Amino acid sequence: MSTPIIIDCDPGHDDVFAIWLAAASPEIDLRGITSVAGNGRIEHTTHNALVACTVAGIEGVPVARGAERPLVAELTPAEWIHGANALGGPELPEPTISLDERDAITLMRDLITESDEPITIVATGPLTNVALFVQQHPDLVGSIAQVVWMGGSTGRGNVSAYAEFNAWTDPESIAVVLDSGVDFTMVGLNISHQALITREVRSRIAAIGTRTATFGAELLEFFCSTYDAFENMPDGPLHDPITVAMLIDSAVATTVRTRIDVELEGSETRGATCVDLLDFLKRPANATVALDLDVDRFWGLIEDAVRKLA
Amino acid sequence: MSTPIIIDCDPGHDDVFAIWLAAASPEIDLRGITSVAGNGRIEHTTHNALVACTVAGIEGVPVARGAERPLVAELTPAEWIHGANALGGPELPEPTISLDERDAITLMRDLITESDEPITIVATGPLTNVALFVQQHPDLVGSIAQVVWMGGSTGRGNVSAYAEFNAWTDPESIAVVLDSGVDFTMVGLNISHQALITREVRSRIAAIGTRTATFGAELLEFFCSTYDAFENMPDGPLHDPITVAMLIDSAVATTVRTRIDVELEGSETRGATCVDLLDFLKRPANATVALDLDVDRFWGLIEDAVRKLA
Amino acid sequence: MSTPIIIDCDPGHDDVFAIWLAAASPEIDLRGITSVAGNGRIEHTTHNALVACTVAGIEGVPVARGAERPLVAELTPAEWIHGANALGGPELPEPTISLDERDAITLMRDLITESDEPITIVATGPLTNVALFVQQHPDLVGSIAQVVWMGGSTGRGNVSAYAEFNAWTDPESIAVVLDSGVDFTMVGLNISHQALITREVRSRIAAIGTRTATFGAELLEFFCSTYDAFENMPDGPLHDPITVAMLIDSAVATTVRTRIDVELEGSETRGATCVDLLDFLKRPANATVALDLDVDRFWGLIEDAVRKLA
Amino acid sequence: MSTPIIIDCDPGHDDVFAIWLAAASPEIDLRGITSVAGNGRIEHTTHNALVACTVAGIEGVPVARGAERPLVAELTPAEWIHGANALGGPELPEPTISLDERDAITLMRDLITESDEPITIVATGPLTNVALFVQQHPDLVGSIAQVVWMGGSTGRGNVSAYAEFNAWTDPESIAVVLDSGVDFTMVGLNISHQALITREVRSRIAAIGTRTATFGAELLEFFCSTYDAFENMPDGPLHDPITVAMLIDSAVATTVRTRIDVELEGSETRGATCVDLLDFLKRPANATVALDLDVDRFWGLIEDAVRKLA
Repeated sequence: MSTPIIIDCDPGHDDVFAIWLAAASPEIDLRGITSVAGNGRIEHTTHNALVACTVAGIEGVPVARGAERPLVAELTPAEWIHGANALGGPELPEPTISLDERDAITLMRDLITESDEPITIVATGPLTNVALFVQQHPDLVGSIAQVVWMGGSTGRGNVSAYAEFNAWTDPESIAVVLDSGVDFTMVGLNISHQALITREVRSRIAAIGTRTATFGAELLEFFCSTYDAFENMPDGPLHDPITVAMLIDSAVATTVRTRIDVELEGSETRGATCVDLLDFLKRPANATVALDLDVDRFWGLIEDAVRKLA
Repeated sequence: MSTPIIIDCDPGHDDVFAIWLAAASPEIDLRGITSVAGNGRIEHTTHNALVACTVAGIEGVPVARGAERPLVAELTPAEWIHGANALGGPELPEPTISLDERDAITLMRDLITESDEPITIVATGPLTNVALFVQQHPDLVGSIAQVVWMGGSTGRGNVSAYAEFNAWTDPESIAVVLDSGVDFTMVGLNISHQALITREVRSRIAAIGTRTATFGAELLEFFCSTYDAFENMPDGPLHDPITVAMLIDSAVATTVRTRIDVELEGSETRGATCVDLLDFLKRPANATVALDLDVDRFWGLIEDAVRKLA
Repeated sequence: MSTPIIIDCDPGHDDVFAIWLAAASPEIDLRGITSVAGNGRIEHTTHNALVACTVAGIEGVPVARGAERPLVAELTPAEWIHGANALGGPELPEPTISLDERDAITLMRDLITESDEPITIVATGPLTNVALFVQQHPDLVGSIAQVVWMGGSTGRGNVSAYAEFNAWTDPESIAVVLDSGVDFTMVGLNISHQALITREVRSRIAAIGTRTATFGAELLEFFCSTYDAFENMPDGPLHDPITVAMLIDSAVATTVRTRIDVELEGSETRGATCVDLLDFLKRPANATVALDLDVDRFWGLIEDAVRKLA
Repeated sequence: MSTPIIIDCDPGHDDVFAIWLAAASPEIDLRGITSVAGNGRIEHTTHNALVACTVAGIEGVPVARGAERPLVAELTPAEWIHGANALGGPELPEPTISLDERDAITLMRDLITESDEPITIVATGPLTNVALFVQQHPDLVGSIAQVVWMGGSTGRGNVSAYAEFNAWTDPESIAVVLDSGVDFTMVGLNISHQALITREVRSRIAAIGTRTATFGAELLEFFCSTYDAFENMPDGPLHDPITVAMLIDSAVATTVRTRIDVELEGSETRGATCVDLLDFLKRPANATVALDLDVDRFWGLIEDAVRKLA
């Protein structure tokens, strides 16, 4: 039995691998893809979602365009990591599939109401679309199996001392989603920085030799070069697909049930996801937080997925 | 030539008079009504919008249900002023008109795209729906003639020292609407506290003797009694219809072009609308702010409107 | 029986009148003067305190130098109102009295411990010295009769929409002083903007013809000219001496026992003194707040004082 | 040549070891000890400083009492870690040395002005005294060689997700000290959690068998038991003496020159010391931050010091 999911994403290099992993895995039933502004402007992330499907031969999955800016804050696309078009590195082919006519919120609503089982939302960008959805369809929160989100951190951040990019881009949306009561899992930098794209990983992907693998290897080379330049990490971290990998095989990551409060007000810490691992605050748990990655198992899933695609 | 408007409201006693004033005035073309949570929960404010139309015999104006909670914050309905059903005082008749099937954002979109001239949004509650609309339809901001909002204050507030209820309920939405670049007018407590519902005003309305007038007089009695108890104002202020009155006759209020910044972070001042009347901050103007009311002209318009209705 | 006081000030034009009023009034026993950075840097405000005494022939009152910067924030002297030396307008004579060797906190401590009755601190600048005093001598808080402070506002501010200069300069110190439990009275812009230095007032002062009066008249001319330019008030407000006037004659001002919370965190409202006049927050009262001025009585006291000095 | 220092502390189990290490080391010239509220109320921390000297036979070092509360915030003593008297575990002997008559700020001033070389302040509690000192004696900042402070963290905290106890207790003081321009080194949890008091360490200390060693071993047992209960660390971290150890032997710790900004406003992160290790913010460096501990070297210094004392 496969898990029905919607991927809400801002591709972005690592988002592409999340889409590919979902599409290639029989444990996952990829029902739709929605784009959001984050790593790039909405024009780019929407286009790149279509590109990701086109390259890998993914067909029949509706792709809808979502929010062009965060709930309250201004957008600052992560061009220093993902390049000007949010998918720097390879030549991007013209998409052969077309955008769904519905907007992201409407597509989510349709997929969720048409499904006879609850649907999981895998979010790999800022949580804007998910926040707007629970805002406007509070009656459908119960039909979401869970939200598995790449973002935040239990430790240090990657845009300020304590803020991770997706969280920093739209902290208010995290608060809205946590307040909605939906089952929520956070996959933060603390675990994603264990998914290092070593030279060996890159070689193995490249060696597969398919169109998807070649495109993917070019993505990884670009991504590692910007991580080297801006985050002092020559082997960049492949954040986003951990979310999907955990749905395929729960042994990919250890988790803990705990409390997350997002900082909305700090002048130095806005967007910090404060995870109360030692229960200092004695507040009720409101989330599951991923802690440690089974690195080999993770890369095994990624490699298998790429191998199955076009 | 009449001004096409949508009233986005949370009725609420004074919202009812805004609807009536719009419906009765030939200068205004009331195209739709959308409800929002604020003075009461969305169930009540939506129902009350239908009641307001039913009592006054307003037909053919679509009424759609909007956001059930503020963009980020939690809702605290103003029951201490408006009562448990948000329209305390009179017996509420069963509505004879039915709710539009569309949600508020969709109705706004349809009315705006179907119109051959820009439409004015008159907002008399928290700005949640308007924020969600500009969030999701940034391409349609240019088709909004202006947003005229009752809320905020240039001086003191009515829920904390400096925060007015509509602003305090959803400060993030004000920021989003101001950031959108839409033409924006604020009608705050500084002017609305000039629209005092004196005993003489109440007598004049009651004396009209129609169903609408009698219902309206009962609303005003209740409203003044809660203002007496909670705000030390035995002659409560009829805030909301000033927005519509200004569209009918610009001489109703003086205004100034100035700068508004809403406080999102203050521990004591969240929701304060900081109006920089003396340009202390040297920031560009982003709004028009109403300053002083022509009290007689205002009440003349209200009385005329009630007189024309059922 | 006279009231023993220390004036803690940042002269500043209106501070000078507070010193003069205290020194000339038999109801007041001026035991000491301490300077603080605020209207000007500490060098200027200390020098100007000596100048104020020298001009008016005030002798035997120790003058001690206090904090050169606010408790936590950075200092921005109000040069746009008080000029580069904080006492723009008249030629400043060389002081004939010399600075006490003690610092402000030590002088306060000595005066308070040597007194056989509690002493009132009249503070007409940022509350830095008072905060440092209660911080370091919590055991002496009970020996302070009260703190009467010019600063804050129940309404609008004069450096941002809601912040008054003294409060904005050192908001943390207000919090510390309020937390100390000392009896506290706030004389804010809401009342001080009633003490307008009309042309007639200026003429009456000038007509006295003494050295003090002539110097004072020059101060008032300069002060009104900067208020005209920067606050749109050609008749500037003589804020500071209201504090002393209230100690001389309580009928000078009406007051209310209420709650003040100072905003420390707001991005737009830092330094706002949130006065909960309608008890929205149901917190215990922690201060007395001056509301309305008996304008004639106030100016009568000022004129009498100037007349008595050299 | 030995380094002249003042220890400003809130003993506190680990503070005691900092005092002992300084007193026993020829590389250090311990000129004075000042107490501050933090781990316990000022009565306790002051008493405990005297106790620490008495037990170890430290004589001729003046001990002065400092601030009883943080600069702006309220004090919450860390009783859950240090016990009700801030030095839980051993029976405390009656001090045989007496408190200096001067307050902490005055003692600091006297020691600094009397010295013919700049003095280092080692601060192992909240920075209140140091902030008050630089506040009141800005002219003496240049006579402070450096401030070496135990507090803060480059990663997670120990009272909330990101705040360490000393920083959380008085964040405003950190800001004041950083703003003063004094040479500043932070020794945070990131390094102090490497100084684990293993069972073997405890055995080695206890085995020394002197009065000081026995007392110290009892301190460590108590401390490890509360760390076990509240922080899930059965081998508690001996934070404070790392500061002194670094002055004795710079090879004890690696450091980096970087930027610290303390969060004063966050609702979830107040007191977080945001260390910009990757220079995300492009602000000028304002501090040295200790990163990694030479664990054996550190414990060697501690053991040697205890061995030399009474």
